[in-house]
Amino acid sequence: MNSDYAATELAEPNLRALLGTAGLDVEYVRGEGNTLFRLGADGQEIPVLDFAGGYGSLLFGHSHPEIIARARQLLDEGTPVHAQFSSHPYANRLAAELNRIVHRETGTTEPYYATFANSGAEAIEAAVKHAELDRVLRLGELLERIAAGAERAREAVADGSAVVPDSLFTRLRTEPPAAGQDRTEAVLAAVAAHNAEPGSRPPLFLALEGGFHGKLMGSVQLTHNPGYREPFDALGVRTRFVPEGRADLLKEIAAEEGATLLEPVVEDGEIRLAEHRAPVFCAFLLEPIQGEGGIRPLTQEGARAVDEFRAATGCPVVVDEVQSGMGRTGALLASAALGLRGDYYVLAKSLGGGIAKASVMLVHESCYRPQFELVHSSTFAKDSFSCHIALKVLELLEADGGSAYRRAAERGEALKAMLDRVRLAFPTVAAEVRGRGLMLGFEFRDQSDSPDQVLGEAARTGMIGYVLAGHLLHAHRIRTFPTASAPHTLRFEPSLLLTDEEIGRLETALTDVCALVRDRASDRLVTSS
Amino acid sequence: MNSDYAATELAEPNLRALLGTAGLDVEYVRGEGNTLFRLGADGQEIPVLDFAGGYGSLLFGHSHPEIIARARQLLDEGTPVHAQFSSHPYANRLAAELNRIVHRETGTTEPYYATFANSGAEAIEAAVKHAELDRVLRLGELLERIAAGAERAREAVADGSAVVPDSLFTRLRTEPPAAGQDRTEAVLAAVAAHNAEPGSRPPLFLALEGGFHGKLMGSVQLTHNPGYREPFDALGVRTRFVPEGRADLLKEIAAEEGATLLEPVVEDGEIRLAEHRAPVFCAFLLEPIQGEGGIRPLTQEGARAVDEFRAATGCPVVVDEVQSGMGRTGALLASAALGLRGDYYVLAKSLGGGIAKASVMLVHESCYRPQFELVHSSTFAKDSFSCHIALKVLELLEADGGSAYRRAAERGEALKAMLDRVRLAFPTVAAEVRGRGLMLGFEFRDQSDSPDQVLGEAARTGMIGYVLAGHLLHAHRIRTFPTASAPHTLRFEPSLLLTDEEIGRLETALTDVCALVRDRASDRLVTSS
Repeated sequence: MNSDYAATELAEPNLRALLGTAGLDVEYVRGEGNTLFRLGADGQEIPVLDFAGGYGSLLFGHSHPEIIARARQLLDEGTPVHAQFSSHPYANRLAAELNRIVHRETGTTEPYYATFANSGAEAIEAAVKHAELDRVLRLGELLERIAAGAERAREAVADGSAVVPDSLFTRLRTEPPAAGQDRTEAVLAAVAAHNAEPGSRPPLFLALEGGFHGKLMGSVQLTHNPGYREPFDALGVRTRFVPEGRADLLKEIAAEEGATLLEPVVEDGEIRLAEHRAPVFCAFLLEPIQGEGGIRPLTQEGARAVDEFRAATGCPVVVDEVQSGMGRTGALLASAALGLRGDYYVLAKSLGGGIAKASVMLVHESCYRPQFELVHSSTFAKDSFSCHIALKVLELLEADGGSAYRRAAERGEALKAMLDRVRLAFPTVAAEVRGRGLMLGFEFRDQSDSPDQVLGEAARTGMIGYVLAGHLLHAHRIRTFPTASAPHTLRFEPSLLLTDEEIGRLETALTDVCALVRDRASDRLVTSS
Repeated sequence: MNSDYAATELAEPNLRALLGTAGLDVEYVRGEGNTLFRLGADGQEIPVLDFAGGYGSLLFGHSHPEIIARARQLLDEGTPVHAQFSSHPYANRLAAELNRIVHRETGTTEPYYATFANSGAEAIEAAVKHAELDRVLRLGELLERIAAGAERAREAVADGSAVVPDSLFTRLRTEPPAAGQDRTEAVLAAVAAHNAEPGSRPPLFLALEGGFHGKLMGSVQLTHNPGYREPFDALGVRTRFVPEGRADLLKEIAAEEGATLLEPVVEDGEIRLAEHRAPVFCAFLLEPIQGEGGIRPLTQEGARAVDEFRAATGCPVVVDEVQSGMGRTGALLASAALGLRGDYYVLAKSLGGGIAKASVMLVHESCYRPQFELVHSSTFAKDSFSCHIALKVLELLEADGGSAYRRAAERGEALKAMLDRVRLAFPTVAAEVRGRGLMLGFEFRDQSDSPDQVLGEAARTGMIGYVLAGHLLHAHRIRTFPTASAPHTLRFEPSLLLTDEEIGRLETALTDVCALVRDRASDRLVTSS
């Protein structure tokens, strides 16, 4: 390669420069278990304890031997990665196994249909596309029914078997027509006028404040962080973001945004109007534990408020388990512990075993539309390689009566107990420890007013989490990051291989960081090694 | 696994049933070179010659030994797949190598910046997001400049150094204010009124009729096929689809949709108005050879029309090389032969070597916005595994002075010559052979009026391509499909390993199919084996 080309950074140079200011632009050359090895200046490998864990993709750690062995075997066997438009028994096995576990955890028995994709964001968009297809079809069915009702009403009046009572005009808030004019057509015109707007309104989405659902053209519009979302506001969908647990606000939204469609029906010799809920709500998206939003678990109350909203409006719920799912909290679905049932579930990250790019969205039978399979597809998805790797991941999760789930929960408890100890030791520095299982966050108090100029400036620019992460990396050989939309919170999502010794190392490191912040001692910050 | 679960199809059962009607729901168990092996009833492998080629993902064939060896080596070395937010030298090397080739093929020298993604559709959406960010920033810069101009105009009038001439009111089609009223504020209010709509208009996209750019929430709205797109119309972006080569229509659109923003400037002692093009066009998306649309190459004239539209409007051009690129037509970029320069290029499919899920979008330096790197990201993208595989693919393409490109072009010529022979032999059946290199289509004449009931019905329901593909599979052990949005066209996208003997086998098979259609002999159709 031409040396000029090699010298120029062309893959996100700006991001790299920004990482460089916190000493985070190191090169990793190998991963194994909870350890990433970076290249030292002398060319030697330096082990780094990885608590970032691929943002939740590494429940079984880097290069898990059984997953790697399966991958090698697939390559050796010449697995037919590209066999689109054929029978995919491995995909069906994977869907079946996911169903078996989802049923066990949620106590349901109806099937969830599976659509595979290549990333969490893609699977979210597939879920939203399905929900919108379902909404459009429901609306179409309702409008057809209403048209047929109007026709029957005309016929009933024409053959004398029904009349148009004055009360209809009152209800439709319109005057009865002058004598001699056609009362039926007048009432049907008023019904059509009522139905016109709710029958053609664009879909409304709901999502939680702090929520993150991806960064593709559509999914970014469902992601709360204005920095990610607002530049793309003009691309289109309407989303209302609500704080969690605000049943009152959800009731208001249901009332404000809800609408009815009126169907003329012939009953007891007169034309009456049946009211139907217009399908104006496309989907409510939420994470059982917000990841990018600062490791914020949804409360029982929050889950109940969403359930009530669904019951009141018919709005399907898309449970985004991309970061929280796949065993990290002690179950395949973190939402199961909340008693929250998804009409849709989305899984990704650890589904790929740290090697493959795999994601899936599951749709409950009650809202499944088979025609979705004919309008949605992906060249790379549903492939034999990622499906077989995902099957291996489920096998590891389910082995030995589910010991992996228990281990994730137990290791998470041990890690959380340590984080809580550090928090209690530094009440002026630490604000909160949040999360469940191996998805934990440690929130610092805002340091914007710190008399330490470096820390104060870093806090004011949202960089303090990165600065502290740089110190953890270089002074302690520990890798973690702040959560992207809550930069005061450090995230900890290690694999279930986490040892007590590793927890101890993190305790030492985090104690040092908290002392440094408490002592306003940015001169002690280490930014290279 | 519970046998009930195993018995239920949960991964796209409807699609499988549809494939089954044409005998296409076979199970493939192994891929090697141009051959996919399916499982016969007796458990034996049956070799099938693969012309579907993963819809363009297999330029080097299934399980290419060097690519597989690289993949194995990466797994053995414990490549750090999940090392987000660190230095990614392999991604930079890949970006540099892509630049070197793009520069050679297009005669340009300015850098293209690279953003990686996990599928073609994701990379398209990243390109569109970048184009929209750029549009919003350009608009913001222009509006700031206009606000500053207004301020300067106020000051110049206030200090007596400029006047507001009557001609301004004429130009703004408004009356001068009554004597004693503030002429400056009146003219600035008229300017603001002029600017309000073009300064807040949602972005407009252009795309070609027949174009396919993906099926995610955003990309599906840029895909022409109404069956894929229309259910999702309410999700939002405004796209105008134009037939290729219609420079006249593009001029009309530029005039209809174009708008100006007015900037007050102080010149020669008076306030004047400078006109700026409002950035209302976000992006023009096109494929150099439409894949799903029926293997339809863009003409030189079509490329020129797009170039002129860009010059007239400032609308950036996104060249979607997802299916046509990566060497398939004898060059990395099929668009280079057309003299069409992309502001954006999108590559995927064979970039992943038939193993990895890799895609990239390249943005020309002149429109690159470094802040994009801070708002866009993906957990799975830019990973060491797919970047290293992609580097291996480029190495294979570039080896031996580019013999792979030459081979793709030469094999494509040989395949096309054969398709043309068959076309000429069956003038009543074959309509056209289209495409370049190893991206070819064979279009059948419409058989909707065929007196053969089976063929006529299949043609009328858009299934005839699948029915013929089923016959090719079972009678000739050849795999191909119709193009999704042009179901009368069979596509041929084999690897560059294609031999003369394999071309001969396809000739025999296609001759049989054409004879069957000509003879209206659906009784000869083979739908299982």
